Amino acid sequence: MRYSSSTLKYKLFQMPEETVLSSGAIDRIGLGSSSVSIKYGDGQKYKDTLDIDNHEQAIQLVLDKLLSLNIIKDYSEITGVGHRIVAGGEDFKDSVVIDDNVIKKIEGLTEFAPLHEPAAILGIKAFKKILPNTISIAVFDTSFHTTLPEVNYMYSLPYEYYQNFKVRKYGAHGTSYRYVSQRAAKMLNKPLEDLKLVILHLGAGASIDAIKDGKSFDTSMGFSPVAGITMATRSGDVDPSALQYVMEKANIKNMDDMVDILNHKSGLVGLSGVSADMREIEGVMHENHRAMLAREIFKNRIIRYIGSYVAEMGGIDALVFTAGIGENDIMIRQEVTDKLGYFGIKVDPKKNDIRGVERDLSAEDAKVKTLLIPTNEELMIVRDIERLRQQG
Amino acid sequence: MRYSSSTLKYKLFQMPEETVLSSGAIDRIGLGSSSVSIKYGDGQKYKDTLDIDNHEQAIQLVLDKLLSLNIIKDYSEITGVGHRIVAGGEDFKDSVVIDDNVIKKIEGLTEFAPLHEPAAILGIKAFKKILPNTISIAVFDTSFHTTLPEVNYMYSLPYEYYQNFKVRKYGAHGTSYRYVSQRAAKMLNKPLEDLKLVILHLGAGASIDAIKDGKSFDTSMGFSPVAGITMATRSGDVDPSALQYVMEKANIKNMDDMVDILNHKSGLVGLSGVSADMREIEGVMHENHRAMLAREIFKNRIIRYIGSYVAEMGGIDALVFTAGIGENDIMIRQEVTDKLGYFGIKVDPKKNDIRGVERDLSAEDAKVKTLLIPTNEELMIVRDIERLRQQG
Repeated sequence: MRYSSSTLKYKLFQMPEETVLSSGAIDRIGLGSSSVSIKYGDGQKYKDTLDIDNHEQAIQLVLDKLLSLNIIKDYSEITGVGHRIVAGGEDFKDSVVIDDNVIKKIEGLTEFAPLHEPAAILGIKAFKKILPNTISIAVFDTSFHTTLPEVNYMYSLPYEYYQNFKVRKYGAHGTSYRYVSQRAAKMLNKPLEDLKLVILHLGAGASIDAIKDGKSFDTSMGFSPVAGITMATRSGDVDPSALQYVMEKANIKNMDDMVDILNHKSGLVGLSGVSADMREIEGVMHENHRAMLAREIFKNRIIRYIGSYVAEMGGIDALVFTAGIGENDIMIRQEVTDKLGYFGIKVDPKKNDIRGVERDLSAEDAKVKTLLIPTNEELMIVRDIERLRQQG
Repeated sequence: MRYSSSTLKYKLFQMPEETVLSSGAIDRIGLGSSSVSIKYGDGQKYKDTLDIDNHEQAIQLVLDKLLSLNIIKDYSEITGVGHRIVAGGEDFKDSVVIDDNVIKKIEGLTEFAPLHEPAAILGIKAFKKILPNTISIAVFDTSFHTTLPEVNYMYSLPYEYYQNFKVRKYGAHGTSYRYVSQRAAKMLNKPLEDLKLVILHLGAGASIDAIKDGKSFDTSMGFSPVAGITMATRSGDVDPSALQYVMEKANIKNMDDMVDILNHKSGLVGLSGVSADMREIEGVMHENHRAMLAREIFKNRIIRYIGSYVAEMGGIDALVFTAGIGENDIMIRQEVTDKLGYFGIKVDPKKNDIRGVERDLSAEDAKVKTLLIPTNEELMIVRDIERLRQQG
């Protein structure tokens, strides 16, 4: 289960086969005219629009539909539920079985993800109520990054901000990095512990991770997902003084409003003025300077971070592309890697002419491998359910 | 002449010999008990404490002392004055002879450097009044960076912030980078245009510059000097959302106060709680975890930026250390370069056992050179005076 303030997404797996029985999404929860979309069987679809007031109703509806669409015959077939949680703070270093204590702890973290965390808590409680005897686990987007060394997670701020308020780098996309790094090790036929990887998770939200000794070593998102590289609507890194200046000049009355602009009106859409979607930007970039600029900046920030992670790790064995843009944007992959020849990175254009499948894209004479690995966070979550079910 | 809101520094050169006749500083201007310190002759010193109300008085005092201490016999010996200006905006791409139009333009830039620019304007006007027939030039800390490509100077913010308010990366320490890059080319016996350099200007204010095709290509300071690497009291890069969170938690009432903390209470002093001075931090680091952490973070951010600039430029021919810490901190130089072996950087510990002199520090088998070059911004400024005097 994935939650945001007004949405819910799910995927239902048959285990241990790891096949997807159904997937679906409910949008506009609590906003009227909520849309329901469910896939099942061999390509069958169910769609509806109705008013769904809250996440509990949404979950009840999904469970009803699983029965009425004959996807399952009985709730007892659901042997475990995994909830994806955005912010896990410093304490949740792995996925956990949810009990009252865990719920309390997650409630204590809502300030770190005010849009996502309350919805997830509603979802967790709804499942506890409807399926009280089914194991529920929480999978945190930050857990994978709890291995970051202090030198990489601390900001150069007054130390008290960390001591008193736990202000530090937490990162995101951890479940994706966990999945992709394991796949990369398999593809390279080496233990993950022996590899230095840079993984580019390039979706609407985009981040980069450096993996060393089998662990997340540094990551581009920070205290929040607004930091790091240029994203669809998020700014990534920016000089705080520039914000102070903009706030005064553009009459932005407080930092909450400014950060809202950094989250929703910056990045590709703010620069291009065209779209937050890379495909639309690429459609007009030859006639539109700002669209071209937005795309060039997107590539540049990726290149900057790759360079810093190669320097921090003292090397790189493989560069990995994943998520929407990473899996599907052939040109971005080619142009980014073409700039990295100095590091021994070289992609074969023929191998790179592909979307959404696992493949080694490296040219014969590349010293560093480049891999394409479609991410699968949901699979990671159901595997965690099975692991924790067996442990408990 | 160098100015800040309450200080003034000068160096008097004999040209064309480029020898220093005198140097001095006045501190606490307008704050009561101003201190005056002048060096001249062969090691002679003059010191005094008195009340100096403003920069005009300070300049008059310096000029009086140059006469009464017999450093010059007559004002006519002063054939040119160079003023160092912190913020030159987009228009000042080189040093310029100051006329009323230039003064007006600099006055239009005060918002970019509210602490420095007004003091410099007072200084410029004082010299115009006292030495009306002597050429005065303005040398901008930002000019050298006006060559940055758009992809490197733009933030991923709404484009209107650049169009309407000129919010972009301007950088700093440009005069230092201009001097050091020219010296590096001489030491390497190659045209600067053919070199890819990363210069580390590591003082209390610290920044890093990537030089390609003889021009500044990217630089770590941004719209303001608060961005980039960890500094004595400045934070360098930080997630803006973390600031939003801190402001709420620590009851910091507006962004001006927050940016003030980022400028004056962060960086080495904020992290260590010990000192803003690297020497003091190194004195206690083995007994004090936070001091050690501050120093490790300082090195780490340098390594990150070197990596990103190597990636952006697609290579590196030489790494150059300059300014206070860069020229004098042997351990920092050794530890930073030891981490960069993957890039072919290697420093010979014996050659590195030196402070404040020009030297090639590279080990015999280093693929990339490492140079120590003491900076000399004042020399660059007097050379600009001579160049512009001859042009005009």
